[in-house]
Amino acid sequence: MTEPAATNEVTVRWTGEKRFLCTSARGPGLIIDAVDGGAGMKPTETLLAALGTCAAVDVVEILRKKRVNIESYRIELAGQRATTHPRRYERVTVRHVVKAAGLTPDALEQAVKLSTEKYCSVAATLNAEVVSEWEIEG
Amino acid sequence: MTEPAATNEVTVRWTGEKRFLCTSARGPGLIIDAVDGGAGMKPTETLLAALGTCAAVDVVEILRKKRVNIESYRIELAGQRATTHPRRYERVTVRHVVKAAGLTPDALEQAVKLSTEKYCSVAATLNAEVVSEWEIEG
Repeated sequence: MTEPAATNEVTVRWTGEKRFLCTSARGPGLIIDAVDGGAGMKPTETLLAALGTCAAVDVVEILRKKRVNIESYRIELAGQRATTHPRRYERVTVRHVVKAAGLTPDALEQAVKLSTEKYCSVAATLNAEVVSEWEIEG
Repeated sequence: MTEPAATNEVTVRWTGEKRFLCTSARGPGLIIDAVDGGAGMKPTETLLAALGTCAAVDVVEILRKKRVNIESYRIELAGQRATTHPRRYERVTVRHVVKAAGLTPDALEQAVKLSTEKYCSVAATLNAEVVSEWEIEG
């Protein structure tokens, strides 16, 4: 499937210390803060949030098309950092935990793999190893 | 410089439609929403925000050590997407615009390059081409 070429634009404004307000033309922005216990997530945590939500958006769509009624859905991400600077993520585990009546592990696996490998722009932009896991919650 | 191995953890919770609440153990979370005009930034925009803030944190630190008094600092990011799925970012331009009395283009260039190439964990985790630009605001 081919889509028109697109450019995404984001503006980041420094608001003092290690805090930043990030906005796009689309609507509400977000605060990122590199200080522990600060006003927002750290940049490296925000990267994990971008990956988890990107992978999840299409999981939700795929399950909806299969008429699965999702009761709850959370994604647990764990990113292992290198020990030397710039301390890149070497490996990120993305665990999809879904509660939905009638959902089978096979159907969830299929949705997670299709979403992550075929549609997830963020995963495709990372050089880290992205490992998907999935679990049906009872 | 070597730091202890570390794992970053983030939990993402689906809150309906294409909205997600993302949290870490550290403090405030953020909302990501893949719907245009929704309750937050899109996952792909959030990736740019993570990159821009990660690069900027050390620019602020480096300039501080040089006793530069930053009056304002914004980072403009533009990410070019591929036309075929998964539509990864092929190239991201990160433009650092700083207003500070006495700051020279050379000093800003040095801070941007050192920060982006040596310290920025997010840039080092991307397979996209990351292009840095810088500008002193009058």
